[in-house]
Amino acid sequence: MSDRTQLWNDLAAQLAVDSIRCTTAAASGHPTSSMCAAHLTAVLFADHLRTHVSDPQDPANDRFVLSKGHASPLLYSTLKAIGAISDDELLSLRRFGSPIQGHPVPLPEVPWIDVATGSLGQGLPIGLGMAFSMRLHGSPGRAWVMIGDSEMAEGSVWEAMEAASYHGITGLTAILDLNKLGQRGPTMHGWHADVFRDRASAFGWLPIVIDGHDVTAIDAAYSEARNADRPTMVIARTEKGHGVSFLANAEGWHGKALSEEEAVKAIEELGGERHLSIEPPKPGSFAPLEPGGSNVERAPAYDEPVPTRKAFGDSLAWLAGQRSDVVVLDGEVGNSTYTDEFQKVAPERFFEMYIAEQAMIGAQVGLQALGETAFSATFGAFLTRATDFIRMGAIGRADLRLCGSHAGVSIGEDGPSQMALEDLSTMRTLHGSTVLYPADGNATVKLVSAMCDLPGISYIRTTREATRSLYPPGEEFPVGGSKTLASNAEDRVTLVGAGVTLHECLRAAETLASDGIMARVIDCYSVKPIDGDTIRRALEETRVIVVVEDHRVEGGLGDAVLDAVAAGGALTGQVIKIGVADMPGSGKPEELRAWAGIDAASIAVRVRNALS
Amino acid sequence: MSDRTQLWNDLAAQLAVDSIRCTTAAASGHPTSSMCAAHLTAVLFADHLRTHVSDPQDPANDRFVLSKGHASPLLYSTLKAIGAISDDELLSLRRFGSPIQGHPVPLPEVPWIDVATGSLGQGLPIGLGMAFSMRLHGSPGRAWVMIGDSEMAEGSVWEAMEAASYHGITGLTAILDLNKLGQRGPTMHGWHADVFRDRASAFGWLPIVIDGHDVTAIDAAYSEARNADRPTMVIARTEKGHGVSFLANAEGWHGKALSEEEAVKAIEELGGERHLSIEPPKPGSFAPLEPGGSNVERAPAYDEPVPTRKAFGDSLAWLAGQRSDVVVLDGEVGNSTYTDEFQKVAPERFFEMYIAEQAMIGAQVGLQALGETAFSATFGAFLTRATDFIRMGAIGRADLRLCGSHAGVSIGEDGPSQMALEDLSTMRTLHGSTVLYPADGNATVKLVSAMCDLPGISYIRTTREATRSLYPPGEEFPVGGSKTLASNAEDRVTLVGAGVTLHECLRAAETLASDGIMARVIDCYSVKPIDGDTIRRALEETRVIVVVEDHRVEGGLGDAVLDAVAAGGALTGQVIKIGVADMPGSGKPEELRAWAGIDAASIAVRVRNALS
Repeated sequence: MSDRTQLWNDLAAQLAVDSIRCTTAAASGHPTSSMCAAHLTAVLFADHLRTHVSDPQDPANDRFVLSKGHASPLLYSTLKAIGAISDDELLSLRRFGSPIQGHPVPLPEVPWIDVATGSLGQGLPIGLGMAFSMRLHGSPGRAWVMIGDSEMAEGSVWEAMEAASYHGITGLTAILDLNKLGQRGPTMHGWHADVFRDRASAFGWLPIVIDGHDVTAIDAAYSEARNADRPTMVIARTEKGHGVSFLANAEGWHGKALSEEEAVKAIEELGGERHLSIEPPKPGSFAPLEPGGSNVERAPAYDEPVPTRKAFGDSLAWLAGQRSDVVVLDGEVGNSTYTDEFQKVAPERFFEMYIAEQAMIGAQVGLQALGETAFSATFGAFLTRATDFIRMGAIGRADLRLCGSHAGVSIGEDGPSQMALEDLSTMRTLHGSTVLYPADGNATVKLVSAMCDLPGISYIRTTREATRSLYPPGEEFPVGGSKTLASNAEDRVTLVGAGVTLHECLRAAETLASDGIMARVIDCYSVKPIDGDTIRRALEETRVIVVVEDHRVEGGLGDAVLDAVAAGGALTGQVIKIGVADMPGSGKPEELRAWAGIDAASIAVRVRNALS
Repeated sequence: MSDRTQLWNDLAAQLAVDSIRCTTAAASGHPTSSMCAAHLTAVLFADHLRTHVSDPQDPANDRFVLSKGHASPLLYSTLKAIGAISDDELLSLRRFGSPIQGHPVPLPEVPWIDVATGSLGQGLPIGLGMAFSMRLHGSPGRAWVMIGDSEMAEGSVWEAMEAASYHGITGLTAILDLNKLGQRGPTMHGWHADVFRDRASAFGWLPIVIDGHDVTAIDAAYSEARNADRPTMVIARTEKGHGVSFLANAEGWHGKALSEEEAVKAIEELGGERHLSIEPPKPGSFAPLEPGGSNVERAPAYDEPVPTRKAFGDSLAWLAGQRSDVVVLDGEVGNSTYTDEFQKVAPERFFEMYIAEQAMIGAQVGLQALGETAFSATFGAFLTRATDFIRMGAIGRADLRLCGSHAGVSIGEDGPSQMALEDLSTMRTLHGSTVLYPADGNATVKLVSAMCDLPGISYIRTTREATRSLYPPGEEFPVGGSKTLASNAEDRVTLVGAGVTLHECLRAAETLASDGIMARVIDCYSVKPIDGDTIRRALEETRVIVVVEDHRVEGGLGDAVLDAVAAGGALTGQVIKIGVADMPGSGKPEELRAWAGIDAASIAVRVRNALS
C-alpha cells in the first residue's frame, strides 16, 4: 500500500470515527449515512478539491456541495480535518446555538459551506449554477456535488442533468453515493449501478462506476472527471455504516446515533480516534473575466401605458450595463416575462433553463453563492414549482431576486392554471423576504433596481396587461414605503391597492367622489415590509379600510394590512378584505375582475354598503 | 389509401380546422400547438381509446390526459367529433362563463375531462395514478397521456417515468408530440427523437419513434403500445401548425390566434370545414376487483401521550378496513409519517413513490380522478416540493387528502430544512381548502376520518413529538369547530393555539392563573374553516387574544384569527400574534420553542406585558 493510499484510508477512518463521535455526543443524527461516503470525501479533500481553506471565497476555488445534507457529520468531520473548525466545534453538532447544525447551513462561522442542503435533490442544480458562474469568469474551479441514491428519484436532479449537458458544462462532477439503503429500507435500484450509468449516459453525462471504498479507484475517477469533456457522474457503490460490523449494510440504522457503548465498540473497529490534518491542493491563480455589459445607457422611463412585466425586462437590460454582476435565468418564457430584453443585450449572462423551474432556482442559488446578482423570472403561477428551492434558499441566506409575471385573474382568457393567485402569500410567509408589486412602469424600474441590493428572497409581481403611468420617471419607491395618491380631511374610507387593483381603486375613488364620498387611495407597492404607519394612520383617520387584491383573500395584501393594523395595538375601525374568493375560469380581464369583485364598480358598492 | 386511412386524415384535418375556428372566434389561444397533434389524436380517438362516450366514468374506460394543456382547442375539437360537445360549445372557447376554458378544467359540463392541466409536466404523473387505480381494480383500461416536447424538461416527467417502470405499470402510454418549437423558439432537442428514445429506454420504457403525421405509423404504434410489457412512449415527430403553408414549422406563432382572414385561408388549405362524427371503440366489460381490507377493527384510542403523526398512521390503518376506496401514497418517509401502519395492513393500496413528491401528488390526482379516496403524506417541509401540483389539483376540483408531518421548530435537532414553517400559509391560501391541526391522538383520529369525506384539498398537520391526551376517545371534532378548554367569566385574555402550541397555551394559562390572571384557552384545530364565532366572542369577552403558532408569523393561524376578527365588522380589542419570526437552527424542541417565544413561559410574559 502506498503512502497516499494509507493516508486516504486513515483519513476515511477518521471521518467515520468523527461522524460517530459527534452524533453520539448529540444523541441524534446520521452517522451511517456519513460513514458510507468517508472514502469518497477523504480522497476528494486530500487530493482533488482545489481550495484555499483560509480564503473560501477565492474565485479560483473548487466548491463542494453536500446534496445529501443529512450526512452533515461527514462534512463537519472533513472541515475539522482540513483545519477549518476545531474538534470542540465538531462536537457541538446539533446543539442549540451552534452553527454546526443537523443539516448544513451557510453561516458566518462556517464560510466553507456555501448553501443550505437537507431537502434532497437540490445539490446538483446548485452545483450547475456554480459551474455557470465559474465558466462565466473563466475560473479553473469546478463544483463537486455529493448525492445520495434516494434523491436520484427527485426530478430536479434530472432537470440539472439535462441542463448541464445541454449547456456544455464540464466543470461539474456528481459523486453518487450508492449505499442502497434509504431511510425506510432498500432504495429503488439497490446497487444496480448500471441503471444510473445508462441514465447518466442518456442525459449526456460521463458515468464512471467504481467501488466507493477503493481509494485508488476513487482517485482515478476524480482525475478522469476533471479531464472529461462532459459533466461527470462518479457512481460509487458503498456500504451504509461501512467499517463497523454491526452497522455495515444493516437496516434500521438510518438517522440513529450510537449509544456511548456502541460508539466505543464502533470506534475501536475503525482503529480508534485519529487527529490527522490535511491540506487540500490549492487552485492555480487566474484573472477573472468581466462579462460584457449592455449598451443601454438610460434607465427606462414611461409616460404611455406599459405592462409592468415589460418594464421589468427593460430594467434588467439597463441594469446589465450598470452592473456586471447581474445575471438572469429564464424558464422558457422570456418573451412573456420580458427577460429576453436582457438576453438581447447581455446574452452571456442569460441562462435559458427551459421549462425546469426547480433547476432554474437551484442554479440561481449556485450563481448567487459565487457572487452573482441573480434574477430569475417565470409566470408567478409556475414559480410555485420551485417553492421548496426558494424555501431552502431562505434557509441558506441566499439572495434570490424573483419575478412572477401574469399575476391574478387579470391575465384573462388563459384561465386559472396560468394565474398567480397564491404567490403573495407564499413569498410573504418566507423568512426575511421582500414582496413588491408595482402599479406602473416607472415604479417597476425603481423597484427592480432596488432588488439588486436587497438581501434574502425578494419577489416582484408583474402584470400582463399594460397599466397607465401614475408616477413620473425618477420618482423614488423606497422598500417598505407606500404612496398616498388621494387624501384629504374629509376622507371617509381608505382604499388600499397594489398593482392592477390600484388602478381599480383610483377609478372607484372617482365614482365615490361623484357620490360625495371622499376616499383616500394608498399604493401599497411594498407588500412586505408594509408601510404600517401609513396604514394605521389611514385607519385612524378614515375608520374604514378596503383592501383590494388580485390574489386569493388569504395570505396576501389583505392579511398584510390586517397584520399591520394589529401590530399597532388596540384594534379600531374596520378592515374589509376583497380578493379572489372563488375559482376563476376564462374571460376578459375586466370580466374576471368584475366577477371577483375587485373592479372599480364592485369596490364602490362595497364602500357604499360599508358606510351606509 | 384505405378507407380507414382516409377517415383518420379527414378527421385530423377537421380537428385542425376546428382548432383554428374556435381560437379565431376567441381571438386568443393555441391553434398551432393543436394542429401538430391532430393526426395523433384522430387515430387515438377513432380506433384506440376505448371509452363509453355516454358514460365517461365507466371503470373499464381508457383515459386521455392532455398534459400539454395549451392544446385545449384540439381536445375540445375532439370532444366535438365524438359527440360529447356541440359546435356551439366548441366556439364558446375562452368566453367568460364557458366551461370550455383556455386550458382544460374538469367541470360538470365536461365530464370527459378528468383533471386540470396547463402547468406543464403534470400529465404523466397523473396518468400513472390512473394506471395504478386501473391495475388495482383489474380494469382493462389504460391511460394515454399527450405530452409536449418542452415539458420533457420538467423533472416531474422523469419522476413518473421512473416510478411507472419500477412499479411494473403497463397500462400507461405517453404520446410525445415532438414539434420542436417552444413558446419562445426552438426546443432544447428539436426533432432529435433519439435523445428521448435513449432516455425513455434508460428509464425502463419502450420507446416507439414515428412520424406523427403518418396515420398508419401512428395506428401501428398505438397497437404496439397496448401490447407492450412496459410503459410505452410514442415519440412522434410533428410540425407545429402542420397542414397550413404559413404556419407549419414557423416561429412566432405560439399562442396566437389567426385573424379572420388568415383563418379562412388556413381552413381552405386544410380542405375546408368538416363535421365528421366518430365513435371511439368501446371497452370490454369486467368485474372490478375489490382491494383487500385491513383487520384493524377498532378505531384507535389513546390515553397515553402519542405523536399525532402516529395517530395519523393508526387512523389510516383502521380506515383501510372501513373503506375499500382508501389508498395511501408515501414519499419514502412512511416510517416517519407512519403511513407504514397502513402499508402493513393494506399493502396493495399503498404506493411507495420514493423521494419524488411531485409524482406522489400527481399520481394522487390520477387516483382520485378514478374514484379512490387518496391520502398522501410526507414531511410538511417537503410537500412544498409539490406546491404546483396541489395548486393544479385545486383548479381541477381534485379531492386531495394531504398530511404534512414534522411541523415547526418543535422537530428540534434536525434543523430548519426539515421544519414545516410555511405549510399552514400555503394550504390555507388555496381555494376551497381545509386545514386541520390536531393537538392530540384522539382529535387526530376524528379529523383523519373526516378527511375521507371532505371535498377539495384537505391538509392535516402532524407533530413529531408525543403530546399528551387532552380529549377522550370518541370526542367529536367537527371541521370548522374549535374547543374551548378553559373559560370563565373573569377571563382577561384568550390564548389561541393549535397542535403543539395548544399545550404551551394550557401551561401558560396555569402559570397566569397562579398570578391571578384568568385565561381562556381555545384549541383552534380547524385553521380553515376557522370557528369565527367563538373567536369573535372570545375577543369581545376578554378584549385580548394571543394567538400562538409553531409556524411563521405570516399566513398561518394568526392571520386566520385576524381574518375572522375582521370578518365580524368593526374591530375591537387586541390581537397579538406570536409565531416563528426568525430563522431557527438546531436544538432541543423546548429550547427552540423558547427561542421562538412560543413556549408557555414566553406566552405568559407576553400576556402580562399586554395586560399591564
